[in-house]
Amino acid sequence: MNGAESLVRTLVGAGVDTCFANPGTSEMHFVSALDRVDGMRSILVLHETVATGAADGYWRMADRPAANLLHLGPGLANGLSNIHNARKAASGMLNIIGEHASWHLKYDAPLASDIEGIARPLSDWVKTSLGSQAIGADAAQAVIEARQSRIASLILPGDTAWEEGGAVADALAMPTVAGFDEKSIEAAVRALRSGESTMLIIGGRAIRGKALEIAGRIAGKTGAVLATQFFSSRIERGAGRVPTFRIPYFVDSALGALKDFKHIVTIETKEPVSFFAYPNKPSQIKAEGTQVHQVCNPGGDGLAALEALAEAVGAKASDAPHQERTETALPSGALNQQTIAHILSALIPENAIVVDESVTTGRESFGLTAGAAPHDWLQNMGGSIGFGLPVATGAAIGAPGRRVISLSGDGCAMYTLQSLWTQAREGLDVTTLVFSNRAYQILRVEFAGVGAGAPGEKASAMMTLDNPPLDFLALARGLGVPGTRVSDCGELIAALKRVLRQPGPHLIDVTL
Amino acid sequence: MNGAESLVRTLVGAGVDTCFANPGTSEMHFVSALDRVDGMRSILVLHETVATGAADGYWRMADRPAANLLHLGPGLANGLSNIHNARKAASGMLNIIGEHASWHLKYDAPLASDIEGIARPLSDWVKTSLGSQAIGADAAQAVIEARQSRIASLILPGDTAWEEGGAVADALAMPTVAGFDEKSIEAAVRALRSGESTMLIIGGRAIRGKALEIAGRIAGKTGAVLATQFFSSRIERGAGRVPTFRIPYFVDSALGALKDFKHIVTIETKEPVSFFAYPNKPSQIKAEGTQVHQVCNPGGDGLAALEALAEAVGAKASDAPHQERTETALPSGALNQQTIAHILSALIPENAIVVDESVTTGRESFGLTAGAAPHDWLQNMGGSIGFGLPVATGAAIGAPGRRVISLSGDGCAMYTLQSLWTQAREGLDVTTLVFSNRAYQILRVEFAGVGAGAPGEKASAMMTLDNPPLDFLALARGLGVPGTRVSDCGELIAALKRVLRQPGPHLIDVTL
Repeated sequence: MNGAESLVRTLVGAGVDTCFANPGTSEMHFVSALDRVDGMRSILVLHETVATGAADGYWRMADRPAANLLHLGPGLANGLSNIHNARKAASGMLNIIGEHASWHLKYDAPLASDIEGIARPLSDWVKTSLGSQAIGADAAQAVIEARQSRIASLILPGDTAWEEGGAVADALAMPTVAGFDEKSIEAAVRALRSGESTMLIIGGRAIRGKALEIAGRIAGKTGAVLATQFFSSRIERGAGRVPTFRIPYFVDSALGALKDFKHIVTIETKEPVSFFAYPNKPSQIKAEGTQVHQVCNPGGDGLAALEALAEAVGAKASDAPHQERTETALPSGALNQQTIAHILSALIPENAIVVDESVTTGRESFGLTAGAAPHDWLQNMGGSIGFGLPVATGAAIGAPGRRVISLSGDGCAMYTLQSLWTQAREGLDVTTLVFSNRAYQILRVEFAGVGAGAPGEKASAMMTLDNPPLDFLALARGLGVPGTRVSDCGELIAALKRVLRQPGPHLIDVTL
Repeated sequence: MNGAESLVRTLVGAGVDTCFANPGTSEMHFVSALDRVDGMRSILVLHETVATGAADGYWRMADRPAANLLHLGPGLANGLSNIHNARKAASGMLNIIGEHASWHLKYDAPLASDIEGIARPLSDWVKTSLGSQAIGADAAQAVIEARQSRIASLILPGDTAWEEGGAVADALAMPTVAGFDEKSIEAAVRALRSGESTMLIIGGRAIRGKALEIAGRIAGKTGAVLATQFFSSRIERGAGRVPTFRIPYFVDSALGALKDFKHIVTIETKEPVSFFAYPNKPSQIKAEGTQVHQVCNPGGDGLAALEALAEAVGAKASDAPHQERTETALPSGALNQQTIAHILSALIPENAIVVDESVTTGRESFGLTAGAAPHDWLQNMGGSIGFGLPVATGAAIGAPGRRVISLSGDGCAMYTLQSLWTQAREGLDVTTLVFSNRAYQILRVEFAGVGAGAPGEKASAMMTLDNPPLDFLALARGLGVPGTRVSDCGELIAALKRVLRQPGPHLIDVTL
């Protein structure tokens, strides 16, 4: 068998059964192997940023890596921004990047580039596989890297792919994850028992399932405030779940919210910092004198850390608070941050997945959906826009049977709108809400925030999307996805009630 | 004045008066400076790949660099694939990449990344500007780098932008370009005089104006075949211009075309190589024993080299052949590679700019338009798809008053369709033809070419765009651009006759 086939067989054997792909000539032997190997679902995308974002969403829901098949250096480059977002969320993924045959590189052909150099700044593991005999073992190693919440980039030269001698490698055993820091946990226990005000900030997998429940017990027992960062990879929330406080985005609000805490304990996350830098404002979101106890790094074993903490403070099951279902009255009239949030709170279906890149319009949605039916909420931890639609696509593939609600600003949606085509192609139950305010509205706020005053005519033009207006229904239709335009609460409610019961993707253009 | 304002003033003073932008918070002081500084046209794009591609097109037509304003590492990453294409075409550009304020970097905020690391593999010059006093001088240097056909990436930390103390720097003098290699030119003269078969391959600026004319004289005088690579950055061609032979794409055809040449002389290009590597095929496109004389590197002074060659071989103005106008009968019936090419040949307006990313459908268009009205033809030298629409956008801005005809495959168009919005916003006279064959058709050819045999069901699905079908009229309308669908020759002819006289952008969906 050739190298490409041994690669695909190794991936399938190691449990990687989903591949997001936009292949080119250099990847044709990988594509050919798909015909001969069962068990790999290959999903075509129109742009690589959809692939890498989808792999991120897939990881967050399936807790295992997908592969991406990318065409040489430029194909990888096209996927980098969503690799960045995935990496900041500690989502593992396995990029397979085609490369020219080894002997061809020295001729500097049009598509030749320094693929390792392009991969390295945003990857945790990079390797060029030098021969059909090696690619199986390299792939097994890449899978293990990806499974440890890492970005693994495996470069596949053409001759490695097409030469005979491929050897399927067995899946490698998962190394033991470093659980938590024993010294920090002692300090954290002292803080939690001290009676001094303490915030317990959880991230990663600690905002889910048993870990979240135990975190709630600790908070209930000790009086600590249980919090999440402004952006988290995935939060299990809603009625019946342990509620968490979200640290605000803007520096002044965040500082205000955290000013009285003597201690911050972090689990699978780091201490909170400002998203951007602003003149004369601090980067660290904490009061002077606040002590930070980082118990468990992102990617660490937050559950084990929380279990140890709970035992030390004597927290029991009955200590955990649980969110009650909030019966939200459906609003009428104009659409705005509040009414949209109330509508979502009432209508999010049980077990839905919300992927949130709604920026300004969605600013109230998280807070006001705390008492909605239980659901998962996914946020962008890397800040590169164009996150939402691809992640929603991958989340739907990683969690079949669950409804995905994708909330997007209009500016964000235009980054990665090609995602809709893959949603239609794969028949994914993704309901996309695009909030059309015809602006990069967040920048109008940030402009003043960085001390640039009030924008004049030329500056304003750089934040405005109304010339020409974007027609999202036409765009969705062009990509094979039906759409509905709504411009008041009644229309949005009616559209959601109808669409959330329908299979397949749909786009709602929420005109503000 | 703050650093950002000194930056914008330095750019304008150095002749950089066009900026393609998708700014974020970190770039707001640059944006604010636009309100205070006259002479900088800032053009908003919906995705950074449109910016970098547009800067490439702008360079090719205006012969000077545009700036791109990009948002941190991910914004740069989004633009990399068209930076790759530009670099392979020796197009200079100046990327200005916002960065967090220096003190904020150590906190690993969401958007923090190794911007220099991301920039370096595809840039020729990278610098982080460390202070408002330094940014003016850094910008002047960056402009000079870009003017020398280089990719200059200047990183602008927030504090460098907003702190006072900015100093406008004077434009730097352009260094003397290395003209050509004296020793190679002697060898080239011997070859051209030898009576042995010689191919003179020209690239870069040598396929234009006086250089092309002189190259024609040399060919006419010596009997050398005047050729271009399969992909060139910009070719002045059509009736009244010196015609050139295009080296074929496929290895066997190219080898066949070049098999009888004893000498290859190259001006502003290198010896021809295969685009991709294939099993059991050579990378170098030349016969055994062919001697290559590289007289002038890409970016060198091809005109001076050609003048020296012409003088040495005694070539006179009357030696140059000139292309006659081919009166092409307008075809009727089905659209195919040939009929489309004939229609273009008849209808390309004088002085038009053709940007060609038409891949398989356009395979005949270049050859059959040799005798069209005089025009410029721009090709993708980097091979990363998504080149055409952004380059057409920038070409229209770099050459106001000229009609741009943008030829795109459907797969290519979906990479960078956001370009249409900027075309509408700026009222650009760009006529886009999307060739809808609902496939990555080229891959069907390449699949066999790399020895992968015939694709089965799963492999075929990775090359097919018909599920769901893309509706390019809806997509264009969604982006503010009117469109027309055509499905036979008569309809295409009627559409072109109408649209090419209209101002502003238009998309023709050529359904095959």
